[in-house]
Amino acid sequence: ESWRLLDALELQRFILADPEVAVEEIMDHTYAYLSAYDDREQAVLAIERYDLSALPVINSDGVLVGVVTVDDVLDVAREEATEDFQKSAAVAPLKMSYRDTSVLQLYRKRIGWLVVLVLISLLSSSVIAAFEETLAATLALAFFIPLLIDSGGNAGAQAASLMIRDLATGEIEPAQWAKIMLKEISQGLLLGAAMGVAAFVLGYWRAGAQVGLVVSFSMLVVVLVANLLGILLPFLLTRLKLDPAVASSPLITTLVDSIGLLVYFTIATSLLK
Amino acid sequence: ESWRLLDALELQRFILADPEVAVEEIMDHTYAYLSAYDDREQAVLAIERYDLSALPVINSDGVLVGVVTVDDVLDVAREEATEDFQKSAAVAPLKMSYRDTSVLQLYRKRIGWLVVLVLISLLSSSVIAAFEETLAATLALAFFIPLLIDSGGNAGAQAASLMIRDLATGEIEPAQWAKIMLKEISQGLLLGAAMGVAAFVLGYWRAGAQVGLVVSFSMLVVVLVANLLGILLPFLLTRLKLDPAVASSPLITTLVDSIGLLVYFTIATSLLK
Repeated sequence: ESWRLLDALELQRFILADPEVAVEEIMDHTYAYLSAYDDREQAVLAIERYDLSALPVINSDGVLVGVVTVDDVLDVAREEATEDFQKSAAVAPLKMSYRDTSVLQLYRKRIGWLVVLVLISLLSSSVIAAFEETLAATLALAFFIPLLIDSGGNAGAQAASLMIRDLATGEIEPAQWAKIMLKEISQGLLLGAAMGVAAFVLGYWRAGAQVGLVVSFSMLVVVLVANLLGILLPFLLTRLKLDPAVASSPLITTLVDSIGLLVYFTIATSLLK
Repeated sequence: ESWRLLDALELQRFILADPEVAVEEIMDHTYAYLSAYDDREQAVLAIERYDLSALPVINSDGVLVGVVTVDDVLDVAREEATEDFQKSAAVAPLKMSYRDTSVLQLYRKRIGWLVVLVLISLLSSSVIAAFEETLAATLALAFFIPLLIDSGGNAGAQAASLMIRDLATGEIEPAQWAKIMLKEISQGLLLGAAMGVAAFVLGYWRAGAQVGLVVSFSMLVVVLVANLLGILLPFLLTRLKLDPAVASSPLITTLVDSIGLLVYFTIATSLLK
C-alpha cells in the first residue's frame, strides 16, 4: 500500500524508470511527515505549506503507521474553520451539523457564554451606578452610552477577529505580538480620531459643545483601548495555552463596554463641572 | 496531460489493464465537472462533496478547458473562510495577509463599517432621548442599559454566526429559513427565560422588585427578538443576492441595541408609573 503515498507525477517517474533500478535510487531522501500525536490542525498546515497530496505519519520510533491525504485535510480544515467561527461568536463548538443539533443541545452550547457575559456586564452596571451623580447632573450623557460602547466593541471585535484567524492559520506567529501592537497603536489612533470627529458632531448636535467634547475625547480613548485589547487578548490566550478564539466578538464587546463607560464618565466628571 | 486527472487508484487500473484495451472501456461514463464560469466556492463544495482529488473544468460548449486539483481547492477554502471571518467582524476582506497590509490600508478596510455602525447607533441615542422623562424619574434604569443591550447583541451574534457559516458551507439551504425560524423561536424562549431570571436577580439586588421585573421582562423580549433577527438577517441578505456574512456580529449588536432600548423603555414607562 505504500505506493499510495505518491502523487501522479511521482508515479510517472516510477513507470518511466528502468525496471532494473531499485526504489531507493529514485526516492527523495528529504521528506515532510507528521507524527501520529500531532494535532489534526498540524496536518492541515503541513499539507498547505508543502502543497502535497499526502503525508506519511510516523510514530515515536519513526515507524510508518499511516497516511493523511489531502481530501481528509480539506474536511478537517473546514471543521476547524467552523469551530473557530462558532467560538468567535461565543458559541461552544457544536461538533455536529446545526440541523442534527436539538434545541436543548443548542441551548447548552449557547447559554454558558451568555451567562458569563452577563456577569461581566455587571462591571458596566457598577460603573454607571458609581457615576450616578454625574449622570443625574447631565442626563444627556445617557444618550451617548450606546454610541460609545458599541463603537468600542465594534473596533475591538474587528481587531480580535483579524488576530484569531491569522493565529489559527499560522499567518501570524504568537512571538510577533509586540510588533503588531505597535502597528495597531497607530491604527487605533487613526480610527479613534476619525470616530472622535464623528462623535463630536453628534454630541454637539444633540447636547452642545461641552458634551460634544466629552463624547469626542471619550470616543478616541475608547477606540484606542478597545483596539489594543482586541489585539492583545488573543495573544495572551495563546500564551496561556488557551485557544485565541475564546476572545470572541461578544467577549471583547462586553469587556470593552465597562472600560468605555469608565473612560466616558471619568472624562465627563472632570470636564463637566 | 489529461492523465493528471486520475488519482492513484485509477492509475493502478490503467497500469493493470490489458494493454490492448482502449481507455473508453475502463473509463467512468458519469462524472462530476465544473463550469469555467462557476464561482470558485463551487469548486470547494464539489471536491468536498465527491471526495475527489481533481475535477475537470468545461466551457459552455462542453469542451475540457482545464483541471482543478484538491490542493488549489484547499487554498481557496482557506481564503474564503478568512474572508468570511473578516466580514463577520465588519472588516472589508483584506485580500492579502495582515502582515503585508499597511496601517492605512487596514484603516480603509475598517473605518467604513465603523462609521455606518455609528449612524445606526444614532437610533439608540434617539430612543434614550425620547424616554428622557422615564429615565429622569428612575435613574437606576441606566444601570441596566449595558446589560440588556450586550445580552441582546451577544445572543443575536451567536445566532447570526451559526447561520452565516452554515449557509457558506452549504450545511443549510436558504429555502430552510422558515423551519429554522420555528426552531429558533423555542431556542430564543429558552435563552430568554434563563437570561430573564438572571436579570431579575440583578435588577432586584440593585434597584428593587419593580425595576427587577422590568429588566427581567425586557431581557426575555430582547433575547427572543435578537435571536430571531440574527437568524433571519443572513437569510434575507441571501435572498437579496447579498453575502449573508454582511450580518456581522457588530452589525447585529448595533441593530439589536436600538430595538432592545425601545423594548426596555417602553416596558419601563408602562410598568413604572
